[in-house]
Amino acid sequence: MKKYLQIHEWKIIEEGFNADNHELSESIFSLGNGRMGQRANFEETYTGKTLQGNYVAGVYYPDKTRVGWWKNGYPEYFAKVLNAAEWAGIEIKLEDEILDLDKCEVSAFSRELNMQQGYLERSFQAKTASGKEVKVKTTRFCSLVDDECGAVRYAITPLNFSGEISLTPFINGDVKNQDSNYDEKFWDETGHGFYKNGSFVEMKTKKTEFVVCTGMQFSLSLDNQAIEFESTQIEREKFTGIQIKTPVKEASTLTLYKYAANLSSLNHPKEELQKLTAETLERVSQKGFEQMLKEQAAAWAEKWQMNDIQIEGDAAAQQAIRFNIFQLEQTYTGKDARLNIGPKGFTGEKYGGSTYWDTEAYCIPFYLATAGQEVARNLLVYRYDQLQKAIENAAKLGFKDGAALYPMVTMNGEECHNEWEITFEEIHRNGAIAYAVFNYINYTGDEAYLASHGLEVLIGIARFWAQRVNWSEVRQQYVMLGVTGPNEYENNINNNWYTNTIAAWCLKYAVEAIEIVKKLNPERLEEILSKIKFSQKEETALFNKIADQLYFPFDEKHQVFMQQDNYLDKEQILVKDLPEGERPINQKWSWDRILRSCYIKQADVLQGIYFFQDKYDLETIRRNFDFYEARTVHESSLSPCVHAILAAKLGDEARAYEFYLRTARLDLDNYNNDTCDGCHITSMAGTWMAVVEGFGGMRVKNGQLNFNPFLPEKWQSFSFHINFRNALLDIKVSAGKVQISNKSNNQIKVFVYGHEQNILAMQQVIVSKP
Amino acid sequence: MKKYLQIHEWKIIEEGFNADNHELSESIFSLGNGRMGQRANFEETYTGKTLQGNYVAGVYYPDKTRVGWWKNGYPEYFAKVLNAAEWAGIEIKLEDEILDLDKCEVSAFSRELNMQQGYLERSFQAKTASGKEVKVKTTRFCSLVDDECGAVRYAITPLNFSGEISLTPFINGDVKNQDSNYDEKFWDETGHGFYKNGSFVEMKTKKTEFVVCTGMQFSLSLDNQAIEFESTQIEREKFTGIQIKTPVKEASTLTLYKYAANLSSLNHPKEELQKLTAETLERVSQKGFEQMLKEQAAAWAEKWQMNDIQIEGDAAAQQAIRFNIFQLEQTYTGKDARLNIGPKGFTGEKYGGSTYWDTEAYCIPFYLATAGQEVARNLLVYRYDQLQKAIENAAKLGFKDGAALYPMVTMNGEECHNEWEITFEEIHRNGAIAYAVFNYINYTGDEAYLASHGLEVLIGIARFWAQRVNWSEVRQQYVMLGVTGPNEYENNINNNWYTNTIAAWCLKYAVEAIEIVKKLNPERLEEILSKIKFSQKEETALFNKIADQLYFPFDEKHQVFMQQDNYLDKEQILVKDLPEGERPINQKWSWDRILRSCYIKQADVLQGIYFFQDKYDLETIRRNFDFYEARTVHESSLSPCVHAILAAKLGDEARAYEFYLRTARLDLDNYNNDTCDGCHITSMAGTWMAVVEGFGGMRVKNGQLNFNPFLPEKWQSFSFHINFRNALLDIKVSAGKVQISNKSNNQIKVFVYGHEQNILAMQQVIVSKP
Repeated sequence: MKKYLQIHEWKIIEEGFNADNHELSESIFSLGNGRMGQRANFEETYTGKTLQGNYVAGVYYPDKTRVGWWKNGYPEYFAKVLNAAEWAGIEIKLEDEILDLDKCEVSAFSRELNMQQGYLERSFQAKTASGKEVKVKTTRFCSLVDDECGAVRYAITPLNFSGEISLTPFINGDVKNQDSNYDEKFWDETGHGFYKNGSFVEMKTKKTEFVVCTGMQFSLSLDNQAIEFESTQIEREKFTGIQIKTPVKEASTLTLYKYAANLSSLNHPKEELQKLTAETLERVSQKGFEQMLKEQAAAWAEKWQMNDIQIEGDAAAQQAIRFNIFQLEQTYTGKDARLNIGPKGFTGEKYGGSTYWDTEAYCIPFYLATAGQEVARNLLVYRYDQLQKAIENAAKLGFKDGAALYPMVTMNGEECHNEWEITFEEIHRNGAIAYAVFNYINYTGDEAYLASHGLEVLIGIARFWAQRVNWSEVRQQYVMLGVTGPNEYENNINNNWYTNTIAAWCLKYAVEAIEIVKKLNPERLEEILSKIKFSQKEETALFNKIADQLYFPFDEKHQVFMQQDNYLDKEQILVKDLPEGERPINQKWSWDRILRSCYIKQADVLQGIYFFQDKYDLETIRRNFDFYEARTVHESSLSPCVHAILAAKLGDEARAYEFYLRTARLDLDNYNNDTCDGCHITSMAGTWMAVVEGFGGMRVKNGQLNFNPFLPEKWQSFSFHINFRNALLDIKVSAGKVQISNKSNNQIKVFVYGHEQNILAMQQVIVSKP
Repeated sequence: MKKYLQIHEWKIIEEGFNADNHELSESIFSLGNGRMGQRANFEETYTGKTLQGNYVAGVYYPDKTRVGWWKNGYPEYFAKVLNAAEWAGIEIKLEDEILDLDKCEVSAFSRELNMQQGYLERSFQAKTASGKEVKVKTTRFCSLVDDECGAVRYAITPLNFSGEISLTPFINGDVKNQDSNYDEKFWDETGHGFYKNGSFVEMKTKKTEFVVCTGMQFSLSLDNQAIEFESTQIEREKFTGIQIKTPVKEASTLTLYKYAANLSSLNHPKEELQKLTAETLERVSQKGFEQMLKEQAAAWAEKWQMNDIQIEGDAAAQQAIRFNIFQLEQTYTGKDARLNIGPKGFTGEKYGGSTYWDTEAYCIPFYLATAGQEVARNLLVYRYDQLQKAIENAAKLGFKDGAALYPMVTMNGEECHNEWEITFEEIHRNGAIAYAVFNYINYTGDEAYLASHGLEVLIGIARFWAQRVNWSEVRQQYVMLGVTGPNEYENNINNNWYTNTIAAWCLKYAVEAIEIVKKLNPERLEEILSKIKFSQKEETALFNKIADQLYFPFDEKHQVFMQQDNYLDKEQILVKDLPEGERPINQKWSWDRILRSCYIKQADVLQGIYFFQDKYDLETIRRNFDFYEARTVHESSLSPCVHAILAAKLGDEARAYEFYLRTARLDLDNYNNDTCDGCHITSMAGTWMAVVEGFGGMRVKNGQLNFNPFLPEKWQSFSFHINFRNALLDIKVSAGKVQISNKSNNQIKVFVYGHEQNILAMQQVIVSKP
């Protein structure tokens, strides 16, 4: 936990330079546009502790697996997002001294992330060892409009001397992934060169042979007058830079505009990359920095119109929710079904930067409500496109006949992870992927998706579950042995209630989806079933039989679902009775002790209840909530949001708010002391869910929106926007009332506190809290 | 499975050279004397596939742990036996051609391990690329008498030319562990130098700073006449050699005698190592090769008198059992309580060459019966000396107040292993260590050992169990959650019957041991209890209470002990119904599939029944045997011996013999296709147990020997020697009768087929099978 940032509704502000916070700030002030992103590294040289990070979406490298002890079935590679060429760097020399904040006296330092307009600004004064003082102000962004481009404006003013200032903007491809397993570099150079006022480095990834050309072009002005200059080219392998030396008078300001482009073979023919990079750079530098920045602000304004949450009366909460939304939008824009949402986005390398079940369980609701439906759909198509790999993945583990097990971690559909208790056993991920199909159709009504893509995925997953269970002679029921649930503080357990629940649901939903497609498009159904050799009668009968005869652990005494077999054999010391000094247990306890304890890392039974809440009456939910919340340590960032939503549903407003607080400022306040590795991007979506589904009480039932909001005590009001089936709604919750504005040209019926409201196009209704 | 060795009662013989078998032969023909050992690498250059291996007992290096994913509690280092300086090497040049069997036409190749006299012999003819033909005969051994020394006699005869032959005997310390985690070398040179006809290399291990000085001295003869020679010194870092060029006439034989010494700082002051090495070399070379070899044969003859097993009518079985005994004796002589028995001995590096519970569970019975009691005692003292480390190890996992958890794998008492399901959970090892104390005292009657050492160990272990269980409210019994039993094909299970059984026994035995020491030596008891702050009344009451109220899974329907909770939820397809093509499952199946199956890697419930067989009636044993044997795949080399002994006890002679066969020729026939990594040293002791406890039916009850032998059908007779409480017995089992000869001066009472026999000193009795 570290609080050093200023509270501001639209900005993240760091004032004063503290090198100890630098890596943390590099994460928090990260920039991205869905296509590329970077940590907030300084433009100028910095020899202090830093994690240099530039990433290009979709470009990965299969790093050779590192294990202690090999287990049959482990994947040979872990596909990682690549630390790519550094494009924002500018080496600064004041006469013969390199400007390096690690070696200077720094004052008036300020760093601001402007979330409203989407740029990063930094200013400082620095005094070098020899006594030279300069003032610097730098602004940069990753352009949403020109999404292969970024730009930097770097203004430097000598304060106590006149002399030569040397600027060397460069492209540096000689970078390494921090998480490289064997300390290897993953790129080979394929070319480098120079333009009139620019240069490029083109590199190819080893093995995967992605090619990325990173170029820059720049111009210079002195006191706002463009100037001509002489320059020296600097080149070595994977590096090009251009040094410009300019005499600058005291108090004059030298400004460098640096335009950068990152073009990848994912989007362009390899042989044209160098030419296209040059053209792109020419185009954006013609457009100019100020125009680009203006367009950036406009593009962000448009996004905020769709996704902003406004909170009155709590600036810290306001800042936090916007930060979460901002980072989600920087990470994934939904334009490209080959991309997904890494748990660290473009803010770090941990977890390989790859796709997890977080996307389906936590992120999809956010994108469904705040973006066009093609965005969530693209996330589904991503999995559809990887179905064959999921089938191969299952086959490696001994499954057959088209059973699909989606990987725990992936870039390209192949499994990357290699802890047996996760890789092979945390199979509930398969359920979340099926659930996302349901969730998407439930929200959008787009049943045609089942016919075009969804059904094949659902059947592959259902086939997996049907093979993964076995018949227990002693119970005379199907059981599911050897799994790890969402609560990763239990490994290799039997009959995890959540996993069994979602498995049974998947089996039933696959059968139901067949019926839906049969109605919508019987020819397409025939085509699919014949393609995947689905024997409709036998297989659907089997799916139904297993779902009906699956065993679900339940405790009669407490009248709660049991997280797994024999859970109550554990010593039941509640979290409230666990000494504060023992927490977080994942730092204080050995792994075996954690496993033997009753403590729950993240919502497990409650995750299932959240997904299928209409199946359970309030009393059931309350009993389970009270039982499991008392045992949950929330040591996953994905946990509190589910508890917040359920607490809200149970009317426990104070606790709902408390859980919300645990997620909202997780990164801004470095709650888990690990944000220096990158922000917790996917759990940010959980924060949005806590507001909209928790405080807003939003649900979609039978194709209709329901709201059941309450106002957290500390707030004066909160409001959010919802894009639902061609309607755009603004919902504002204030003391005792809810105001809903229909911003679209379509009327819509919604339920507020259980009562139907018919809201005409462009109309506003106000409903009082009953 | 690979059968290429000749059958011979006293020798292992390989005829004809096949490079594909070379690494396998390097393991099988390994030499050792308990203090040092080596794989059967060729003396001359060999550029084909080889695993060079020379090892010095007790000298280890803590290699930095390699993991895929770190878990709290993992040790930072894995202490490994070190690949040490190569001392047997001699580079041979025929004029300008290096003799290298990989580049020659090889004929008349033969390699023989003479187990009776303890040496390795090799002869061959080789034709070089240029057509030169030579005949070579080489003999070498690790001396039992001078146990820091080895010697080589290398005789070479040009067959079709006269010319210069160059011999370069050398010491090469520039070696690397094959299993180095980060490809590092573990030795630094501390010195090298030359003697008149010899040289040395002295090296220090990194971190642990063991110093080992390895030297050689040599002489030369031509046609059995010692000759003088000129020589050239060759030196580089970690390498010294001396080149001698001699003109040799066709059909003359040039013979090099090379004496080597390995002196370590474990046994000598560091600063004297170089001097002592020179002195040792001087002494043994004065003694001379032939005299050393004669002493070697005598020393082995003495060993064989104690430990030989003779089998008439089955030469393959005869060879196999002697090979197993020979390798055990080469690995551990019991002189030094700082040493132990690595699972690969001096024959390879796998498993770090470290101490496992194999020692207590499998090796101690062998050494108890075939060596003086100080040998087994030294193995116990080894653990006693590491008790503090075991307490620290437990503390790292959250245990307290002197609870001791012995490591899964160790060199110096610190845990090395890092798979959570093994390291933290395979805690039954603690039980085997306590059981070995019982076993030793049961065999020797040496109760004083409890007072001097044993009790402290037993209490440390009992304290661990007392903390490791927890009270289950639902069962109203103690339970033991999250363990891995001997059957490593189940991980993180609850209430493993074997673990619970041995834990309860440990608790009771600790209490009993306190009573024994109280009787023997009440002052010593006070001293111990006060030293370890043992509160006699409370802690013994707790130990008793837990042992009495511990839960043991049992299945009413089958009337068998249940290996663990919910084992019968698994699909029960018996091993006989598992298609041959699916086996071994550890090569054919993914890890999760293995875990979910009912298949048992090695004796688990049956291991417990074996340990405590007097507690169970024959019908109970039979039911459990039939149930578990049908589910056991014996994919651990430690498994079949236990099944063999129990089958024998149940009178199932055919099956007992079948299980015996699975262990006896495991390495000689490369049964598991992994002997190229080294021999399965510790499981060799299981083979001995299968003969003596299985076929011989030997047990010690109430301080008395019992025999209940049967003769396997294929055999004419078998006999073995037993050293028991000052009596030396030869037992010979032949058709219908048992002949027992008391070779000592003390009379002894034994039970044969349940009937008491009083055997006077030097007397022989013959008992007919009833």
